[in-house]
Amino acid sequence: MIVVMQPEATETEIEGVTEALTRHGLQPSVSRGAECTVIGAIGDVDAVGDLSVFSILSGVDKLVRISAPYKLVSSREGHRRSTIRVGPALIGGTNFAFIAGPCAVETPEQAAEACAAAAKAGATVLRGDVYKHRTSPYAFQGLGAAGLEILAEQKARFGLPVVAEVLHPSEVDAMVDVVDIFRIGARNMQNFDLLRACSLTGKAVMLKRGLSATIEEWLLAAEYAASSGNLNIILCERGIRTFEPATRNTLDLSAVSVVQQKSHLPVIVDPSHGTGSRSLVAPMTLAAVAGGCDGIMIDVHPHPELARCDGPQALLPDELQTLAERMWQLAAWMGREVPASVASAGHDLG
Amino acid sequence: MIVVMQPEATETEIEGVTEALTRHGLQPSVSRGAECTVIGAIGDVDAVGDLSVFSILSGVDKLVRISAPYKLVSSREGHRRSTIRVGPALIGGTNFAFIAGPCAVETPEQAAEACAAAAKAGATVLRGDVYKHRTSPYAFQGLGAAGLEILAEQKARFGLPVVAEVLHPSEVDAMVDVVDIFRIGARNMQNFDLLRACSLTGKAVMLKRGLSATIEEWLLAAEYAASSGNLNIILCERGIRTFEPATRNTLDLSAVSVVQQKSHLPVIVDPSHGTGSRSLVAPMTLAAVAGGCDGIMIDVHPHPELARCDGPQALLPDELQTLAERMWQLAAWMGREVPASVASAGHDLG
Amino acid sequence: MIVVMQPEATETEIEGVTEALTRHGLQPSVSRGAECTVIGAIGDVDAVGDLSVFSILSGVDKLVRISAPYKLVSSREGHRRSTIRVGPALIGGTNFAFIAGPCAVETPEQAAEACAAAAKAGATVLRGDVYKHRTSPYAFQGLGAAGLEILAEQKARFGLPVVAEVLHPSEVDAMVDVVDIFRIGARNMQNFDLLRACSLTGKAVMLKRGLSATIEEWLLAAEYAASSGNLNIILCERGIRTFEPATRNTLDLSAVSVVQQKSHLPVIVDPSHGTGSRSLVAPMTLAAVAGGCDGIMIDVHPHPELARCDGPQALLPDELQTLAERMWQLAAWMGREVPASVASAGHDLG
Amino acid sequence: MIVVMQPEATETEIEGVTEALTRHGLQPSVSRGAECTVIGAIGDVDAVGDLSVFSILSGVDKLVRISAPYKLVSSREGHRRSTIRVGPALIGGTNFAFIAGPCAVETPEQAAEACAAAAKAGATVLRGDVYKHRTSPYAFQGLGAAGLEILAEQKARFGLPVVAEVLHPSEVDAMVDVVDIFRIGARNMQNFDLLRACSLTGKAVMLKRGLSATIEEWLLAAEYAASSGNLNIILCERGIRTFEPATRNTLDLSAVSVVQQKSHLPVIVDPSHGTGSRSLVAPMTLAAVAGGCDGIMIDVHPHPELARCDGPQALLPDELQTLAERMWQLAAWMGREVPASVASAGHDLG
Repeated sequence: MIVVMQPEATETEIEGVTEALTRHGLQPSVSRGAECTVIGAIGDVDAVGDLSVFSILSGVDKLVRISAPYKLVSSREGHRRSTIRVGPALIGGTNFAFIAGPCAVETPEQAAEACAAAAKAGATVLRGDVYKHRTSPYAFQGLGAAGLEILAEQKARFGLPVVAEVLHPSEVDAMVDVVDIFRIGARNMQNFDLLRACSLTGKAVMLKRGLSATIEEWLLAAEYAASSGNLNIILCERGIRTFEPATRNTLDLSAVSVVQQKSHLPVIVDPSHGTGSRSLVAPMTLAAVAGGCDGIMIDVHPHPELARCDGPQALLPDELQTLAERMWQLAAWMGREVPASVASAGHDLG
Repeated sequence: MIVVMQPEATETEIEGVTEALTRHGLQPSVSRGAECTVIGAIGDVDAVGDLSVFSILSGVDKLVRISAPYKLVSSREGHRRSTIRVGPALIGGTNFAFIAGPCAVETPEQAAEACAAAAKAGATVLRGDVYKHRTSPYAFQGLGAAGLEILAEQKARFGLPVVAEVLHPSEVDAMVDVVDIFRIGARNMQNFDLLRACSLTGKAVMLKRGLSATIEEWLLAAEYAASSGNLNIILCERGIRTFEPATRNTLDLSAVSVVQQKSHLPVIVDPSHGTGSRSLVAPMTLAAVAGGCDGIMIDVHPHPELARCDGPQALLPDELQTLAERMWQLAAWMGREVPASVASAGHDLG
Repeated sequence: MIVVMQPEATETEIEGVTEALTRHGLQPSVSRGAECTVIGAIGDVDAVGDLSVFSILSGVDKLVRISAPYKLVSSREGHRRSTIRVGPALIGGTNFAFIAGPCAVETPEQAAEACAAAAKAGATVLRGDVYKHRTSPYAFQGLGAAGLEILAEQKARFGLPVVAEVLHPSEVDAMVDVVDIFRIGARNMQNFDLLRACSLTGKAVMLKRGLSATIEEWLLAAEYAASSGNLNIILCERGIRTFEPATRNTLDLSAVSVVQQKSHLPVIVDPSHGTGSRSLVAPMTLAAVAGGCDGIMIDVHPHPELARCDGPQALLPDELQTLAERMWQLAAWMGREVPASVASAGHDLG
Repeated sequence: MIVVMQPEATETEIEGVTEALTRHGLQPSVSRGAECTVIGAIGDVDAVGDLSVFSILSGVDKLVRISAPYKLVSSREGHRRSTIRVGPALIGGTNFAFIAGPCAVETPEQAAEACAAAAKAGATVLRGDVYKHRTSPYAFQGLGAAGLEILAEQKARFGLPVVAEVLHPSEVDAMVDVVDIFRIGARNMQNFDLLRACSLTGKAVMLKRGLSATIEEWLLAAEYAASSGNLNIILCERGIRTFEPATRNTLDLSAVSVVQQKSHLPVIVDPSHGTGSRSLVAPMTLAAVAGGCDGIMIDVHPHPELARCDGPQALLPDELQTLAERMWQLAAWMGREVPASVASAGHDLG
């Protein structure tokens, strides 16, 4: 960290800062420039309770942090991009993850139809939520344990790993036998107790970006999970909140590249929740793939007009199939490995 | 709810909508206008899983919701503004709540000095957190149980109720004997399990607005708490996230009036966290009071430069005293009742 | 337009609304539903000074607009997507526009090198600004007339049309002989006098989206240009302002699809200004193409570290060439026509 | 400016930076710290075309600007807060400006009633626009020259200075004989040609904050006006664009204090446009006064339901009178001088 002093800072103020740094276990190094004095602070800045206290010392202009505030998830020299194994699926590296299924498990039939469509389209992971996080207490909250059974059936039927949202630490035990990836929703991104509980299972954790989370905050939340000893973390961009009312969220695709520069963790994109609108899912899926993301997650529903949750964004099975064929071609062109099942299905990977 | 059909919608499409409404237990009422057809839907719209499914029916242009999606917390005919009793303190109605104390309990001495300053300035409630929600896993996370003991001492010493943040349902039991108001932080606004756990204690709950929560989402979160049977809810505006970097958050004071029009719950303002800067606390406190808020919550610290958390926004005891005198004068001018202890302390209430 | 009355609205209030509508030349049509009364308003709602006045009539709950507020630029039945001819280049429809060149014309040599790189990479239009809109009055403001001469030379040398930003109506006359597309910058999106002045030349107008403009406001600004009698309008998404500091702006790629659904005008994307960072230009270019945009505009500079404006986002000539080859392949895969010059240059269009 | 090098930067990279700084006329000063090397750059950084070019030199981590990028409008040592004389009115310092009148001049009768209400309430300046900046080309655009005549009549009738919006440099000549303060609207904040044209008249300029302008950008826009030689600049906060739909804009009252810390210019607040809603004008007016603003600007209309522009936010004459009495009391309590006309009108200034 560097402390930049105000141009008019006095010697007494400079001493005040060096003393404060020393008191917090940091080693100060003063450089007197023509414009202003700069004080370097060497040591474990993260051990300081709150760096911002230095900003209010007399004579201080601003603080400049040198090292990234996250460590375990950062892409440092010598780190390769992470590859995470989830059952038969690999996520990250040169692999491409295609996650599809119903937004929520509603009935055995609906789940079966949606998962069949997903598997046919080449999904490498199935999705299907049994606990739903709803803005209104009067909205459908998920099937709970009954849904978990349905999900387990679909998992067994297709031999594919499954991802489902977890809302509370108390649900982890019930889910751990069925779920391969615990998904932390956008509204829970900074629910650190929940992150820890999922991390401690050793299973993979998918961390959605909060609606108004900066990329740095998102990576710090991942650092919470990582610091519990589990680095099987998958990041998921799902749109941020902006002033634009035409889409439910603003899908921030440049965040994918930024994260890939700053972290070794894989980043997937959720164009269904990221746009909220069926007609935008296909273009945003292809955009995300060409932008270099490590995977895509899409909602599919046999009867969106009957869906109990997020129907307007669900693709029909046929729409999913058509899109997936284009998506896999594009993923291959981007240098991603395409599963044999998809390639042998006669896709033209050009 | 009203379903507005596209101008070119066919009879078959109109029938499709009336059937869908009926299937969801709503009673349709079709009005054919010169410009377009409008279909009213009478019944319990909240019993429908997700109203948005109607928006994707063929021929539908848009949905218009008539009733507010929250009920228990809404300000309807016949409702008076709520007054909440917390120990000797009253919050809401014509009362004015002044909450002050340390952001976090750090040491017995620091807590004692900060609480003494708060009490001297006329605080009606003390604050002091023992569990801290920090963006970085390496930052100070609070004293926990040891902090709770310190807080209990200050509570006994001044005979004032206390408010403290709760991060996880598992902490509720330990806190319930000391804490009079459970505070749900901005990042937990939609942690509905936590809201329920606090509600079920019967104690008052202070619900901070999420960083990017709309007012409607905030009131729906309050509705979650209320639907657990506890209406002792205090809302707290603490700034929203915008593009402006000069302040940590943008304090949205117009939200106070909007909430007071839509809900009977009291709304207080936190200018300390809402601005992040000591020099903005005094002007924003006075602005909030003149804007009609039901109370103010302020951080105070005997040595902000040594604070382990949010030092840059803490007032010094003297600064708090000066501000509080102005604040009480203004609150009285706004028609608020001023506690006898404050009035008898010689404040000129003009 | 539909006026939705409050459930408790009285007959007198309903009459008040029908009278107000009639007074403004609209024909009211009252539908009494079980939940509330709805009043349709037929006629030229745009002739009313300000529709919002109806919202404050006694008993009114809300207004619902049926028709889009823009007409000439909307994609209505029977409209095909527009194709705009600019010298030898076609923009829109199945064409793909590739606009490249220096952000600003700085010297004859710099402009020549940048334009040569653009032409070699297959640019169909050259860019190069001579008037710069800078946040600080102390920053480089462009070469003006001298820059226009340099731009004219490059135009003649490569036989390509050019686009340049116009800041003020007074510059239009000087630019009209050189410039083929007048570009209206993001900060001028609602400078309607400027839009009109450019429109009246009959030349094409490129309208960048304002930093905080909704899509509706953007299309209404295009409607200003269109209502001056010129429909040769190209829209350009260039990032919106959000809370995220990691990128200069948040490139809103879903806006491209939304606009293509609502309007017949072509939409291009500027990943250079949209991200502000060289390392993000390539991924965001490919993302935009796969997302279905009608063209791309990229800054190139032979020596970005010497650039007088926006150096951090400029590609080097070699980087542009590598990216362009990928971009053209992807554009062809998306069904776009690729210019013969590019195809014959040996690109593998797979 | 300080250039912070990456920890692993080489000597060659450090030399590269010092050479680049020298080439741009800056004098480098290298400090080698234990964590990283820091290079101070002394000299006229504003003479450099674009400081950001240094950020892309090899080995550079980040740039830290020391001096504020604006000079003439900054609050530096020795500067007093500005007081601006506009006819008989003083704005800034310990004065309090109360600007009221119709949003737009619509008819002689409407303007007369609105201005009479304003004058009666103690307005020190009248408002009334004759050119309107409307999002839609089909909305009322103002009366133009005819409106200017009406405005001149009201000015003469009450002997009060007037403020009106100017949209284009071409309107300045026609307005200059009537208007005392040229108002630059939010959408024109960075229309620097317009700022210059107004500045050169020598009349006062009111600069509204752009919808998504940071405080730094706002002050830089003021610097454009100031650098034309006219420091009679009044800043006006009028709400920023955020995600919250309940209010038309989010009034950013903390910006008032921030600007007063950074600049010597007076800052007023427009609660009418800042909220868009009549019911929020009174609380936000009082909040702004208690927050320390230098003045308030309010729309008043004798018949808001007939207004051709922004009717929903206009106060009725009676509402203005009631609010103004409270407002003047509060302004006096804040230490502001109250005009004799107001004081002698029997207001209780407590």
